[in-house]
Amino acid sequence: MKEAFLKACRGIRTDYTPVWFMRQAGRYMPEYQKLRQKYDFLTMCKTPEIAAEVTLQPVKVLGVDAAILFSDILIPLEAMGLKIEFIDDKGPQVLPNIRTVADLEILGELNLEKIGFVFDAIRILINELNVPLIGFAASPFTLATYVIEGGSTKEFVNTKRFMFLEPEGFHKLMSLFTKATQKYLNEQIRAGVHAVQIFDTWAGILSPFDYESFVKPYVKRLIESLKTVPVIYFSSNTAGLINHLKELNADVLSIDWRIDIKDATDLLKNKPLQGNLDPLTLLGSDEELFKRVEKVLIGARGAKSHIFNLGHGVNINTSVDKLKKLVDFVHEFKFMED
Amino acid sequence: MKEAFLKACRGIRTDYTPVWFMRQAGRYMPEYQKLRQKYDFLTMCKTPEIAAEVTLQPVKVLGVDAAILFSDILIPLEAMGLKIEFIDDKGPQVLPNIRTVADLEILGELNLEKIGFVFDAIRILINELNVPLIGFAASPFTLATYVIEGGSTKEFVNTKRFMFLEPEGFHKLMSLFTKATQKYLNEQIRAGVHAVQIFDTWAGILSPFDYESFVKPYVKRLIESLKTVPVIYFSSNTAGLINHLKELNADVLSIDWRIDIKDATDLLKNKPLQGNLDPLTLLGSDEELFKRVEKVLIGARGAKSHIFNLGHGVNINTSVDKLKKLVDFVHEFKFMED
Repeated sequence: MKEAFLKACRGIRTDYTPVWFMRQAGRYMPEYQKLRQKYDFLTMCKTPEIAAEVTLQPVKVLGVDAAILFSDILIPLEAMGLKIEFIDDKGPQVLPNIRTVADLEILGELNLEKIGFVFDAIRILINELNVPLIGFAASPFTLATYVIEGGSTKEFVNTKRFMFLEPEGFHKLMSLFTKATQKYLNEQIRAGVHAVQIFDTWAGILSPFDYESFVKPYVKRLIESLKTVPVIYFSSNTAGLINHLKELNADVLSIDWRIDIKDATDLLKNKPLQGNLDPLTLLGSDEELFKRVEKVLIGARGAKSHIFNLGHGVNINTSVDKLKKLVDFVHEFKFMED
Repeated sequence: MKEAFLKACRGIRTDYTPVWFMRQAGRYMPEYQKLRQKYDFLTMCKTPEIAAEVTLQPVKVLGVDAAILFSDILIPLEAMGLKIEFIDDKGPQVLPNIRTVADLEILGELNLEKIGFVFDAIRILINELNVPLIGFAASPFTLATYVIEGGSTKEFVNTKRFMFLEPEGFHKLMSLFTKATQKYLNEQIRAGVHAVQIFDTWAGILSPFDYESFVKPYVKRLIESLKTVPVIYFSSNTAGLINHLKELNADVLSIDWRIDIKDATDLLKNKPLQGNLDPLTLLGSDEELFKRVEKVLIGARGAKSHIFNLGHGVNINTSVDKLKKLVDFVHEFKFMED
């Protein structure tokens, strides 16, 4: 198995910078589209053979250094008694919604048997892959936002109303999701994933004070329960939270493009970093793209170690060829000697 | 005329902290709703007497220290030959869209005669107000995003595609909007506004490198042309751009809640600051609200001066009473002696 990704997770510098992409399996790939014409998104997630096949596609086509399980962060909600739906162009929908402390009783304990397909897919994959497999889950907070809002939103009005009207109730919800996510990720680890990534996609909507009060303690508690494999903590829009991110016990911090990775390297001394190219640079010219890729690679040179990635998922309009060129560029990049 | 706001803009500390709110005139106010039932949004903007009346409403009801002209950042686009529409719940729409260098010819020079109502409203207001009047415009970049995207968007795919495919064309667009915005804001100043705020609402979608390349030089050029009144530069989601914000020649920097104002104070030494309460804290309990207000006031204590504001516009669900309580709290707040 190729080792560069796991070494970098452990803070070890390797001959070349390992690279993978969030949402590297997905709609921008013709191979994926072909399957998607036959099955809807949830069926693909829930059929271990299909989920495994889709997970493998970008590994074969792009030559990335890690695979990430094809699934969705909302999947565990079904195992807690909620209903999830994916309607094209409308984004995910969750029902019913939890918006007050009284609604908390809607939420059942995580029943792993209901989502056995996730672990079955992992077991298929670890026999077929020549790169490490990353498992994942939403952070308790990001999961909470979906359950509270019921879908996509810009302002997160319901989430914050709950938080600021019933702070104790919100803490209870965070506790419940922390427990469920611990159970879910540990079962992925038992099934064989080599690393896990926690997606705190919406952490960046909060002030540092509210992140510290309502999110950080739960992320720390969650990560502490995942001792046996490296843990990557992904967040977005969190340049103002960097002092808090530093204090998380994550093995790797994955950052987005809204902060210069050189600045992040200076602020997050001694932390392995993942990131942080703007995914939409892949829609431009090669010249503009590689100028920015080089800036990321050189900027992260001072970090303990670096896993190249985007700051967010691959955009649907991305060309597979362009992404493959990017992988090759990162692998072949030679740093000037200091 | 009450002086606290303009003094704070000039970096002078006053007996109490001045306070106003972005979108303080608007749909959360019953007085506004009453007028809105009779006229559509654009008619309200385009009728000087109505725009003036709506501008005055929050000054009377809330007792804020500054008024901001009731208008919309897209208004100047109509004076450049484009069509704007406001459809309830759908957000603003702009047509036609400029997405390549070839489309640039769509854009006419700013014709001030077409938007004389803006300056007429200002002239009415300066005779009626007992607080300073703030004029405003979108930054050239934020204006560009609306013209490129045609409306609201999450990812700004078209904006970035243009930027990364035709960087020289994008620079041309930025030049055109800089020239138009200079002309527009200077005419507001001639009509009598006491300060101007530049809204760079979408600056935070860019990496520091792209902000520096495509936005910063134009903001600097724009601000240099506005010498006679204080200039407030508002941006959102820009904690990772703070080193660049520091180098803008704005009199005041308005920041959002995604950065601790204490951290911003340390990083932006000697700059007057405006902000930075999360507007949605106003939907919670008084206890949670005032805990956070106090944190902002104390956090900004080390800044050269401080204008209390939200990090974004007033949310439509906000209660007028709550906002009035907030104004009083800020005015009456006593700092502990060091």
